Amino acid sequence: MTVREKIERLRAELRAEGLAGFLVPRADEHQGEYVPPRAQRLAWLTGFTGSAGLAVVLLDAAAIFVDGRYTLQVRDETPGDVLEPRHVTDSPPADWLRSRLRPGDRLGYDPWLHTIEGVERLQAACARAGASLVPVPVNLVDRIWADQPPPPRGPIVPHDQKHAGRPSPDKRREIGDLLATAGVDAAVLTAPDSIAWLLNVRGDDVAHTPVPLAFALIHRDGTVDLFVDPAKVTPGLREHLRDGVRLEPPDALGPALDRLGAGRRTVQADPAGAAAWVFQRLAAAGATVTRAPDPCLVPKARKNDVELAGARSAHEKDGVALCRFLAWLAREAPRGELTEIAAAARLDALRAEEPLFRDVSFPTISGAGPNGAIVHYRATPRTDRRIAPDMLYLVDSGAQYLDGTTDVTRTVAIGTPTAEQRDRFTRVLKGHVALATARFPKGTTGSQLDVLARAPLWAVGLDYDHGTGHGVGSYLSVHEGPQRISKVGSAVALQPGMILSNEPGYYKAGEYGIRIESLVVVVALPTPPGGEVPLYGFETLTLAPLDRALIEPALLAPAEVAWIDEYHARVRQALTPRVDAETAAWLARATEPLSARPPRGGAGP
Amino acid sequence: MTVREKIERLRAELRAEGLAGFLVPRADEHQGEYVPPRAQRLAWLTGFTGSAGLAVVLLDAAAIFVDGRYTLQVRDETPGDVLEPRHVTDSPPADWLRSRLRPGDRLGYDPWLHTIEGVERLQAACARAGASLVPVPVNLVDRIWADQPPPPRGPIVPHDQKHAGRPSPDKRREIGDLLATAGVDAAVLTAPDSIAWLLNVRGDDVAHTPVPLAFALIHRDGTVDLFVDPAKVTPGLREHLRDGVRLEPPDALGPALDRLGAGRRTVQADPAGAAAWVFQRLAAAGATVTRAPDPCLVPKARKNDVELAGARSAHEKDGVALCRFLAWLAREAPRGELTEIAAAARLDALRAEEPLFRDVSFPTISGAGPNGAIVHYRATPRTDRRIAPDMLYLVDSGAQYLDGTTDVTRTVAIGTPTAEQRDRFTRVLKGHVALATARFPKGTTGSQLDVLARAPLWAVGLDYDHGTGHGVGSYLSVHEGPQRISKVGSAVALQPGMILSNEPGYYKAGEYGIRIESLVVVVALPTPPGGEVPLYGFETLTLAPLDRALIEPALLAPAEVAWIDEYHARVRQALTPRVDAETAAWLARATEPLSARPPRGGAGP
Repeated sequence: MTVREKIERLRAELRAEGLAGFLVPRADEHQGEYVPPRAQRLAWLTGFTGSAGLAVVLLDAAAIFVDGRYTLQVRDETPGDVLEPRHVTDSPPADWLRSRLRPGDRLGYDPWLHTIEGVERLQAACARAGASLVPVPVNLVDRIWADQPPPPRGPIVPHDQKHAGRPSPDKRREIGDLLATAGVDAAVLTAPDSIAWLLNVRGDDVAHTPVPLAFALIHRDGTVDLFVDPAKVTPGLREHLRDGVRLEPPDALGPALDRLGAGRRTVQADPAGAAAWVFQRLAAAGATVTRAPDPCLVPKARKNDVELAGARSAHEKDGVALCRFLAWLAREAPRGELTEIAAAARLDALRAEEPLFRDVSFPTISGAGPNGAIVHYRATPRTDRRIAPDMLYLVDSGAQYLDGTTDVTRTVAIGTPTAEQRDRFTRVLKGHVALATARFPKGTTGSQLDVLARAPLWAVGLDYDHGTGHGVGSYLSVHEGPQRISKVGSAVALQPGMILSNEPGYYKAGEYGIRIESLVVVVALPTPPGGEVPLYGFETLTLAPLDRALIEPALLAPAEVAWIDEYHARVRQALTPRVDAETAAWLARATEPLSARPPRGGAGP
Repeated sequence: MTVREKIERLRAELRAEGLAGFLVPRADEHQGEYVPPRAQRLAWLTGFTGSAGLAVVLLDAAAIFVDGRYTLQVRDETPGDVLEPRHVTDSPPADWLRSRLRPGDRLGYDPWLHTIEGVERLQAACARAGASLVPVPVNLVDRIWADQPPPPRGPIVPHDQKHAGRPSPDKRREIGDLLATAGVDAAVLTAPDSIAWLLNVRGDDVAHTPVPLAFALIHRDGTVDLFVDPAKVTPGLREHLRDGVRLEPPDALGPALDRLGAGRRTVQADPAGAAAWVFQRLAAAGATVTRAPDPCLVPKARKNDVELAGARSAHEKDGVALCRFLAWLAREAPRGELTEIAAAARLDALRAEEPLFRDVSFPTISGAGPNGAIVHYRATPRTDRRIAPDMLYLVDSGAQYLDGTTDVTRTVAIGTPTAEQRDRFTRVLKGHVALATARFPKGTTGSQLDVLARAPLWAVGLDYDHGTGHGVGSYLSVHEGPQRISKVGSAVALQPGMILSNEPGYYKAGEYGIRIESLVVVVALPTPPGGEVPLYGFETLTLAPLDRALIEPALLAPAEVAWIDEYHARVRQALTPRVDAETAAWLARATEPLSARPPRGGAGP
């Protein structure tokens, strides 16, 4: 079926149900970033494969809303004459709905695939048009998707204490106490990574993130009901969870919520993460529903010392693989024979040589020339481009090691970069260094720091249309909250042990893309003499050289040069003993102090 | 009557009304910063004269809640054995009430003196204790305040088009259109500065802010009902307002709201500014009440070209007065005979020599040595301190000129500053310069920029406990919203024409205070070559030298030195032709380039 045919089939279902439209988000029941094939309804229906988006299909119109990362991609993948592509913040779904719905219209949605906050926003938009938003018990896409895959059944295994650093009963007691203090009887957990963290387990249900798709209830006494497909339960898991965790099948969740309601319990769920279905079921059963963030979020984000040691070790391994790749690239790329896909395959293979490697943490982004300007580019045979001289090449990649999750972007010049490219790269680097060296009082949020990374671009009228930093898990999600560094306000202060990315960029559509991304961890700094407030800063975890050919020293302050030189010395020291001689020789040149730069031949303004 | 006697009298009223307590905020019906003597109920009842606070008087307990600025002052002014002093954020009124109210208790409040959002917060606190919050038709303090002053009757006069820059009918049409677009029939205006801006009038009802205390209704057709005491209406005003503005007495407001309700109109009011009374009356009358910010806020904040020309002219006048003062201070202070009050009087008198001067824009803060560390210090005969050598002196002052409002802080060293003072001053200055030179894309909020002003202090573990910038009106309030530069998130983007203060500081309790404050205006910058986003920046309006003796050049980057030298050159050029020879000679020395600094004798680390 073509996209047009699928949309027409969906419209037939709409007419049969007396609906004016149906919402198709790129979301599963867990609001996870990676969704199993079964839940790829948006991609199946529209062709759009990005990691965030919403299609709204009305009887006589249809649109697909994506964010700044995907405005180019959506035009490539989805027929614009069937679904109108729209920028989700410039022209939000609420506005589009308000102008198209008519009084009395009923717009359908699947209450498992939307958060309660999302539902309420759309309800308000419908109400302004005199229309209503109605939950639909069976997803209408599932009805027309003949060969929809089954739910995944990845085995759930214990996560070793030597990597987790803290026993699960300890964690459960902490969360139970938090609930008791808040006067709450139980919390519904719908985020697989929260459940994985809480129980020290890992799963294999979705790509690149070692989590089990599951739901859980944690009670104020610290006991847990875990709702999972019995087929996923390994014998080792039963042993691991033997005290205080009850295993139940997924369809026992509804009745469990009903019992809480019948007992007039106060139950907490995350309005930004849990499915609207959870709130609706609890309320219908008579529970007092409290909206509060997932109680595991902050404890999970604050990595313990064992997790931090693991992160440092994971980054050494990752640095070895990336440096071997970059050295190889420096040798091979000038011949002009490499392609994006071949390069990504090589990098993935080098990472896979590490014994603790389990998976890449997301599909490697390997973008040459103009493809580097597509923020979440993924090379396909159709788009695969040769990495040729006089091009910038951007590679954003990471891995899941048993002891930690990595995520790193480096941009390198193949051949001679232009003066403009060096200017832009150096401005991105200045922002990266400003954040890496930031010192800030306890209580500061990532939103307050965001400007530091953007100011050097802003100075010349440039910017980038994505956040500056996202949280990263510990052998868990490569994107985790609540910490972030972003233009958007955040109420969560940065705390020691939180890992985040530091990734400013610059993208010139149709020409080149630049991003410099390292992971950092929030650390408490010693109070300087005379200092009055507790001070935090960042330690950079990622170990990989920054392309000196792209750095314009005239744009750097002495302190910036010093930071880059010290960083390079640290990279060299950490990785040289662990790489082959050829890579070590490349690494020695790549990490020379900026002052040692030999006169450049062909390049320059 | 003593405070104790007044509290006992109030309790007698409580018993007569069957109330468990009564709330006495430092607020008037307009939630203004300056309140008329009649509305100084908190000061009359408790003795506390700060600009923000709340007393809660129960039958068997009483407390007064103040913020961090006033924790020392409240202990001075209010008997602690009658009203327990409490920090409003560390131990909020809601917590205190929750632990003291009993089920069934009725806590009274005057619905004219609280916003609807404030009432709802307190209602929730009462509900948790099983108590209720009830509006009281006549303020109980008014009943026992025998010699309560009458409401002010300052004449209302037209604000000349040559200063306002835009005819009132234009403004009214713009606001009316905004309401029509939002589907609203009318908006209730309770902020005197919004009414003054909208109608191009000024008043004389409160100290330091030339506004008339009044209420208004603006309808979607752009017509206005203005509710004011007829005694304040001058003949010129009637002429000025003749088209589209209906004058009515204050007690006609209630019936006007009732008529809107009877007509089933949709009426808008500001939940953060309008009295709860407005919402309650509208709802009771049957109106659909929409909560939205005062529609005049943003248009008022974006000064037009005439207002901006006025602001520049006002700042030249203000610079002349301040420079004459600083030159005089440089001659007189080393003798050690000047006091804070005498210095403030001299400065106020110099400002008053300007023909367009109407008032100071707030009581001058004149703080020597440790008094400079009290952020909202006001010298009194009891605290008045001699300005002596080897002290820092902080002076924060401003004026209301017919063509603009000013607000400026300079900190000067009397004699030789210490190395620590020079370090701290230079860090505050670096923050001030970083903000003054910031370039940022359209859509950026002040909250995003706040860190620029703090980073140099954060670097050494220091900070300041106040915002970095507040909006400033045009011959209106010296503190106006919605624009601000603050750690606290803001949803309002900075827009060209908005005037704000740029005022980082550092305060060492018991020793000295440093603040550097200039007003800036948001301006659109030309797009740099290759720039892609519309770029804004700030133009500094304030013209007054920064004390070179407090600047440590070793801490400054070349671009910072260049900005300071250029700023000083601009100050010298603008003011020299307008000051006496003695001041001009001082100004020439005070504005020399930093590189011209003669070797310093006694000072240094």
